[in-house]
Amino acid sequence: MSFDRLIEKIIEMKNPTVVGLDPRPEYVPEYILRRYQDSDGWTMKAVSKAIFDFNQAIIDQIHDIVPAIKPQAAYYEMFGHYGIRTLEKTIRYAKLNGMFVITDGKRNDIGATMEAYASAHIGAVTICDTEVEPFGADALTVNGYLGTDGIAPLLKCCRERDKGIFVLVKTSNPSSGELQDLRLEDGTPVYAKMGDMCEHWGTDTVGKYGYSAVGAVVGATYPEQLSELRKRLPHTMFLVPGYGAQGGGAEGLKGGFDENGLGAIVNSSRAVMCAYKKEGCDERDFAIAARREAIRMRDDITQYINLG
Amino acid sequence: MSFDRLIEKIIEMKNPTVVGLDPRPEYVPEYILRRYQDSDGWTMKAVSKAIFDFNQAIIDQIHDIVPAIKPQAAYYEMFGHYGIRTLEKTIRYAKLNGMFVITDGKRNDIGATMEAYASAHIGAVTICDTEVEPFGADALTVNGYLGTDGIAPLLKCCRERDKGIFVLVKTSNPSSGELQDLRLEDGTPVYAKMGDMCEHWGTDTVGKYGYSAVGAVVGATYPEQLSELRKRLPHTMFLVPGYGAQGGGAEGLKGGFDENGLGAIVNSSRAVMCAYKKEGCDERDFAIAARREAIRMRDDITQYINLG
Repeated sequence: MSFDRLIEKIIEMKNPTVVGLDPRPEYVPEYILRRYQDSDGWTMKAVSKAIFDFNQAIIDQIHDIVPAIKPQAAYYEMFGHYGIRTLEKTIRYAKLNGMFVITDGKRNDIGATMEAYASAHIGAVTICDTEVEPFGADALTVNGYLGTDGIAPLLKCCRERDKGIFVLVKTSNPSSGELQDLRLEDGTPVYAKMGDMCEHWGTDTVGKYGYSAVGAVVGATYPEQLSELRKRLPHTMFLVPGYGAQGGGAEGLKGGFDENGLGAIVNSSRAVMCAYKKEGCDERDFAIAARREAIRMRDDITQYINLG
Repeated sequence: MSFDRLIEKIIEMKNPTVVGLDPRPEYVPEYILRRYQDSDGWTMKAVSKAIFDFNQAIIDQIHDIVPAIKPQAAYYEMFGHYGIRTLEKTIRYAKLNGMFVITDGKRNDIGATMEAYASAHIGAVTICDTEVEPFGADALTVNGYLGTDGIAPLLKCCRERDKGIFVLVKTSNPSSGELQDLRLEDGTPVYAKMGDMCEHWGTDTVGKYGYSAVGAVVGATYPEQLSELRKRLPHTMFLVPGYGAQGGGAEGLKGGFDENGLGAIVNSSRAVMCAYKKEGCDERDFAIAARREAIRMRDDITQYINLG
C-alpha cells in the first residue's frame, strides 16, 4: 500500500541501502563457476546454477544488516529461461531471509500487457482457481514514458498486495539529460515533470512515514537534481543508483534524504559483489568480503544523515 | 545492419503486417489448455506448454503469407521461467519457418546492463568460448528515455549481427500524450524529439531501401502524428500497433507508409489470435481462422498503399 514495509526495515537496521544483485559471470568466483561443469557442461544452465549459489551466499552474509536486494533482470535474462529460474530462486531465497526485494526490470507497456508484467513481478496469476506468484518481488522499477495507462495496472497490485514501484525519473547515466533535462514550454525539465507524475500517481497510497507506493529512480551522480527533487516530491521515495562505481559520493546523497534520514534507499551492486576482488582476498571469502563492503557503505552513507 | 531483411520479406509477400503473439491463456482453445493437465496439472508449466502449441499452430498457418511475428514478452514472463522457455521456443520455431521475429520487450537500461539485454534478445553470450543466442530474435522494442547510453549497446548488435530495434516514440494508448505530447521550449513535442533521436541513432546503418536499423513505434491510433513523423523521419522504419482492436483504421495508416508502400509494418495481435471466437467457428479451427484474419488484414491495409 506504501513503502512502509521497506522503511521499517531501513529504520530497524539503521541502513538505507540496497545491494544490487547484477551477477555478471565474471563476478562469480571460479570455484563456483566450475561447480556444475561436470553435470551440465559449460552451458547457460550451469552458469545460472552457479549464479544462484553466488547470490545465495551473499544473501546469507548480508540479510541481517541490509534491508533489501535489487536483482537486475537483464543479467538473468541473458541466460534465457535458466537465468530466469535463478531470478525466481534468488527472490524467493531473499524473502525467506526477511529481505525486501526490488526487481530492477524497468518494465513498461499499456493496459492488459502492463497487467501481465504487474502480475508476473509483483502480483499473481490465477490458474484454474489457484493463485501463483511467478516472481513475487516486493517492488518493480518501471519506465513511465507511456503515461498513466502504463502505471495504473501496477497501482492495483500496490494497493491490493502491499507492493511498490520505482519510476525512472532522473537516471544516473551520462546521457540521461538528452531527453530528461530538456525543458518543456513552461520551463519544467522533463525529469521534473515525470517526478510530478509520480507524486500524482502515488496520491492515495501515502503511508505512515509520508511516502506513497510510487517511488522514483534518481541517480546519485546528479546531487543537485536529487536535492531539488527531494523538495519537489515530498511523498515520493527515491531509489538511488550510481553510488560508488558510477561516481556518486556519499556526501552528495545527503540531499536525497528528508530530515529523518528517510525517503531514499541507495544501491550498490558491483562494489559489494566484487569486494573480494578489490580487497584481493581469497575468492572463497567473496561473501564475507561483500558483508564488509556492505557495512562500509552503510557507515559511509549514514554519517551524513539523521537516521533514528 | 538495417531493416533490409524485413523489408525484403514484406515486398516478397506484398504484406506489411506482423502478427503479435500475445497469448493470454483465455485466448487458447480449451482443448489445448487441457492437453497437459494430465502430465503437469493446472500449473504454469502446463499453461506454458499449451501456449507454445497454440503459437506453433498459428505460425504453421501464417508463415507463408505474413513476414513477421511479434511476441510480447509480458505474456510469457507472467508464467515465470516456464513461460520464458515458451518464448524461446516460439522465436526459434518462427525463425525455422523463415519468419522475422520482433520481441516486444520495451527493454531499457544503461551501459553494461543494456549490453546484457542486447545479448539476451538480439545478440549472443559467450560461455567458455561457445557462443549461444539466448533468445535469438531479429529485433527488439526498446524505450529511449535514458538516452544514448541505453541505445549504443543495441547498435553494436544491429551492426554486427544484422539486427534492428524499434524505439517507443508515439505509443498507441490514450494516455500516451501525458508526456509524449508535451512541447519542449522550442515547440517540438517530446515524441518528435524522441523520433529525431532515432534518426540520429540510425545514421550509419541505412540500408538499400533507405531505412536504418533503428525503427520507431508509432501508434495507429494517432494518424496525424503518424503522417507527420513519416515526413520528419525519412530513414526510420515504423512499427505500428493499435490497428483494429485499439481503434486504428486501415485508411489512417496510409500516412505511415512512403510512396513505395514501405517504411511501416502494422501489428495485429488479438484480432488474429482470437479470430475463431469472432467468427464463432469450432475452436479446433483457430489456426485457420487466424490465417483468414491475417489475409483480411493484409488486404484491408494494402488497398491504401502502393506496395510493388
